[in-house]
Amino acid sequence: MRKVAILGIGQTKIDEQWDKSLREIGGEAAFAAMQDAGVDKVDALFVGNMLSPLIDGQNQLGTFLADWIGLWNKEAVKIEAACGSGAAALRAGLMAVASGDIESALVVGVEKMTDKAGHDITAALASAADADYEVEQGVSFVGINALVMRRYMHEFGWKHSDFAPFSINSHANAIHNPFARLHEKITLDKFEKSSMVATPINLLDASPIGDGAAAVVIVPAEKVASLAGRPRVVIAASAFSTDTLAVHSRKDPLFLSAAYESAKRCYEMAGVGIKDIDVFELHDAFSIMSALSLEACGFADRGQGPRLGLDNAITVKGQIPICTRGGLKARGHPVGATGIYQIVEVVQQLRGECGETQVDGAKIGMAQNIGGSGASIITHILKAD
Amino acid sequence: MRKVAILGIGQTKIDEQWDKSLREIGGEAAFAAMQDAGVDKVDALFVGNMLSPLIDGQNQLGTFLADWIGLWNKEAVKIEAACGSGAAALRAGLMAVASGDIESALVVGVEKMTDKAGHDITAALASAADADYEVEQGVSFVGINALVMRRYMHEFGWKHSDFAPFSINSHANAIHNPFARLHEKITLDKFEKSSMVATPINLLDASPIGDGAAAVVIVPAEKVASLAGRPRVVIAASAFSTDTLAVHSRKDPLFLSAAYESAKRCYEMAGVGIKDIDVFELHDAFSIMSALSLEACGFADRGQGPRLGLDNAITVKGQIPICTRGGLKARGHPVGATGIYQIVEVVQQLRGECGETQVDGAKIGMAQNIGGSGASIITHILKAD
Repeated sequence: MRKVAILGIGQTKIDEQWDKSLREIGGEAAFAAMQDAGVDKVDALFVGNMLSPLIDGQNQLGTFLADWIGLWNKEAVKIEAACGSGAAALRAGLMAVASGDIESALVVGVEKMTDKAGHDITAALASAADADYEVEQGVSFVGINALVMRRYMHEFGWKHSDFAPFSINSHANAIHNPFARLHEKITLDKFEKSSMVATPINLLDASPIGDGAAAVVIVPAEKVASLAGRPRVVIAASAFSTDTLAVHSRKDPLFLSAAYESAKRCYEMAGVGIKDIDVFELHDAFSIMSALSLEACGFADRGQGPRLGLDNAITVKGQIPICTRGGLKARGHPVGATGIYQIVEVVQQLRGECGETQVDGAKIGMAQNIGGSGASIITHILKAD
Repeated sequence: MRKVAILGIGQTKIDEQWDKSLREIGGEAAFAAMQDAGVDKVDALFVGNMLSPLIDGQNQLGTFLADWIGLWNKEAVKIEAACGSGAAALRAGLMAVASGDIESALVVGVEKMTDKAGHDITAALASAADADYEVEQGVSFVGINALVMRRYMHEFGWKHSDFAPFSINSHANAIHNPFARLHEKITLDKFEKSSMVATPINLLDASPIGDGAAAVVIVPAEKVASLAGRPRVVIAASAFSTDTLAVHSRKDPLFLSAAYESAKRCYEMAGVGIKDIDVFELHDAFSIMSALSLEACGFADRGQGPRLGLDNAITVKGQIPICTRGGLKARGHPVGATGIYQIVEVVQQLRGECGETQVDGAKIGMAQNIGGSGASIITHILKAD
């Protein structure tokens, strides 16, 4: 398959955007990416979104957004893999460009979640779990993650405060990201005193929802070889793997096998090892997921993920910087958009556009987007060349 | 891009399947396709579905179904383009195999619609229209199509009974399809006396919903060159085009520009003209759509679609046989599954497996799947070689 580059990026601030409709938010990111790419048309649109049928009563989001941005008579389709929808949409666009069938694609992740009175967001998010065998029993999505975190703490002997560095790091980095939802430095004390959501997950273990959209324009890499002024960012690897839908079906509920598989395939495809990864935008929907993702991708031994936080290895100056723009925890988590925010942020790092949270000399970055409780995991490795 | 072949097909009967869950229905078609293909594993799963978030409270349908059929640690994703979801999923799978990233894919269209007490199917289907500017005004999906049909009759001087042949043909063909929902021969008299749904659309202008799933296994064409016993069916062309989401935004609400564009691209890609198409599985969700689809794809002049029905050109022995297995009208329309049923039926024709409704010597077939009121249209041309 031919190599594909990311020519342009765009994003909106993640916030309560009550003054803007779903299409306006998506359009804002789409136009920003096209402007950044310097193009005024593309061959196709791929939209990552999870909740618009449930929250907005809107299906057919590909055509919905294509129509709004004036992209008529082109392909436009929606991809859904729960909270992994964004990266899944990128992968669909990547396949179409890589196949040679189209020459450019706009990929947009968009979600509007905060102002829908009468809709229960917790119930809508539970649609990522197994409706017949998990949700029917009354368990919410945060509830499932709480069970996993509790078991992890028991199994490996960690206490709740050991997870604080994940949250503190994301919050510290988000302060320098104008698109982040939360701009509030937190401390260990604040972390420990935060309100409980589902024991042991408290408010500062959990990422906030939000309204937002992020977008990228992708084209065959050979077409941007001559682009001057900034490094060319290519998609060096892309892999999608799945686990059982329900956590209770897994032989080992504390190991993200789909993260392991998709990362392994990406390392092979990109021809890199874990030591080559300069920045890792992981899916810290809950602090436990940071630990599990780092372990499954090879950055920590089993049960030792929190150690990387306690040793300051995850900060911008650390051995494996994560969530350098605030992660899901502080940048915010508009679910179907998150995967594209992660890609946009890795591109920013590889272009050297991250200011205070720039990772020195970043050349290779990884993004990992998770749908459900580890059920659908999509990993990408980007390279600056 | 490398050429891709359809190695296996599978389908369930379309019916009220109250004794089977969504995953059981999808699994049944998936296993049937894998058995027909003679494979016991594939690299990836692409699922076309529209309504599971709204009706079943279930998102992440790719992983949901992959888990059920034991396809762990593989890619699995859901594609949604309203009633065009099935063909959109095939196209996503096609791109992935054509790119060289994967060597095989299972594509499943699945929908369960009939036994969900407390859910308003008419409201759920309206999510294919524009929630802000159409549905908010109280218009249903059949209502939109009724406005289009009324305008068409006024503009081109047709009376309601002129559309009867579309319905009569689909019903006549479905009698010989064991997977069809309706096995009832209808007459012009029955057609005219049928209950009104939304003037001028009556019950026999409209396709019935249903529970059902259809599936195909696709692989690189060069891998099946040696398959003996039956013709190899290749995907000669695939194209996806869109129009405005809302009918009221179109310059001409009586022309399916996305059908025109996607069919035109397919003719070019496959190197065929309309005279080469031996069979055409079109999207007769409502009888007016049969006329509009035939016109946009070049089989009839503007406003003259009903003439093909009145002249018996659409029957199995006619100039352009359509809906040879019953079409949406009588085979049934489990919305997100329909696009794959159409593909399965074209494959059956090209393999010569259609018995009483076999089109003699069929070598080239076209399938056209429509999402929304002509908003998302995906066309495929298959060839037997």
